[in-house]
Amino acid sequence: MTPEAWRRDRQDRVESALAEVFAEAWPPRFREACQYPLRTGGKRLRPLLCLAAAEAVGGVAGGGTPRPSEENPALIAAVALELLHTYSLVHDDLPCMDDDAMRRGRPTVHVVYGEGTAVLVGDALLTEAFATLGRLPPGLVAPMVRELAAAGGASGMIAGQALDIGLDGAVVDRGALERLHRAKTGALLRASVRMGGIAAGADSDTLAALGTFGDAVGLAFQIRDDVLDADQDAREGGPPSFVRLLGRDGAQALARAQADAAVAAVRHLPAPGPLCALAAMAVERDA
Amino acid sequence: MTPEAWRRDRQDRVESALAEVFAEAWPPRFREACQYPLRTGGKRLRPLLCLAAAEAVGGVAGGGTPRPSEENPALIAAVALELLHTYSLVHDDLPCMDDDAMRRGRPTVHVVYGEGTAVLVGDALLTEAFATLGRLPPGLVAPMVRELAAAGGASGMIAGQALDIGLDGAVVDRGALERLHRAKTGALLRASVRMGGIAAGADSDTLAALGTFGDAVGLAFQIRDDVLDADQDAREGGPPSFVRLLGRDGAQALARAQADAAVAAVRHLPAPGPLCALAAMAVERDA
Repeated sequence: MTPEAWRRDRQDRVESALAEVFAEAWPPRFREACQYPLRTGGKRLRPLLCLAAAEAVGGVAGGGTPRPSEENPALIAAVALELLHTYSLVHDDLPCMDDDAMRRGRPTVHVVYGEGTAVLVGDALLTEAFATLGRLPPGLVAPMVRELAAAGGASGMIAGQALDIGLDGAVVDRGALERLHRAKTGALLRASVRMGGIAAGADSDTLAALGTFGDAVGLAFQIRDDVLDADQDAREGGPPSFVRLLGRDGAQALARAQADAAVAAVRHLPAPGPLCALAAMAVERDA
Repeated sequence: MTPEAWRRDRQDRVESALAEVFAEAWPPRFREACQYPLRTGGKRLRPLLCLAAAEAVGGVAGGGTPRPSEENPALIAAVALELLHTYSLVHDDLPCMDDDAMRRGRPTVHVVYGEGTAVLVGDALLTEAFATLGRLPPGLVAPMVRELAAAGGASGMIAGQALDIGLDGAVVDRGALERLHRAKTGALLRASVRMGGIAAGADSDTLAALGTFGDAVGLAFQIRDDVLDADQDAREGGPPSFVRLLGRDGAQALARAQADAAVAAVRHLPAPGPLCALAAMAVERDA
């Protein structure tokens, strides 16, 4: 199976699982609002990292037959990760945060359903992320909840948001920029990989290797984002970025080095193919 | 120990446990914002219900010596409940929701720290509620997460909020009003009692009895709130309430009947004293 075919197949599984979320929410108009931001046709990067990590550890090769969704802890964790990521986008887009009216070519939740509903939709997505983890086999619930809450919480993603809206002064050097991104997006990417490992029963050495992979690939993704943004918009100014600090070529070289480091951390696992392909995609993608 | 002394003692334990939350959050200004809404001097009703239920089941009488906080699963659950309740208040108070500038005599979070930060503070409190449950003994994490997520989610508290901001038409009769309150406030009160039972190892019959108690006492609290509101403000109009539907005396009689039903459901437990005292408080309190 090519990396591209693997990605499409696993994205389809994730879409099917996400389509079932909020099936029982009410009132109906609120259910519709909760489902709206999940139906984006996004890359589903976090779910893919989670599934690839589980397969890397468990040795399910690209051509293997993964278990059906209701028995697949990695897919349950993948859904929880996408719910958590989506809530953060819905709240980020609010007028009192980044004030974005469009996302992926569609009006954002608060534009369609109003601000109050958008706050509630984000809250519902966040709560449902943990409800989803509650459906895992009991022995997996505790480590998964700890991992997701730490990555998403006030010392992880939310701290990154707080820094981003200016609660801790300006970002002036590469160290500060790396800390910002590690919190704002890196923590959840790292958790995505580790939760896949936990789903597959990884030991602590393997989880550490997956964490190293997640840190490096998270940084590679962020730097590539900065490069793509800079290619689109060469104006001076704008938010701090790796391109502004290192130049375009320096930034892209750093992204490649991070992807190489990510691959080196997991190459010894039983079936690292899809995971390594995602690392390569991080630095080569055009969008 | 009198009910009043029991309440003060357990409130003190809850305050001590809450004072430790977000100790490691950063940046410092964000940590301060997260801790601000927790330091209210509130009744801590949900934590008290949780602790009283655990003691009722476990047979720790009022004069007994509960375990220290770090070994007390009921206290951990109590903290998670208060975090979840507090997040809902922070988001409710936002300009795009109820737009309240004051709560318990203090400016609300968005007034002090800004709207964007208030959204993030609510998100952090909600995430920390589940992080807190993740610190329970592993065997308790799954049932506790399921209970809290169901009560707080898109078919519980958040659905109640969605109804409240007008996503499902007008509330016109007692049945609709009971459904609204059961979702908006009742679900979390019920979960408070059941989570105390789970912490103490209650069997399913006992959990069902605690659920019955929680439903009845939740409704009693809400009706008494309506009665107290009506006594303060006798104007026509305003939101739908039990007083408008049943008259003041009819509403207060219904509150008493609910409290009696609550007590009847748990009287057979080993040490139901504090739980029954809370039911009595529900319908006799003046604030």
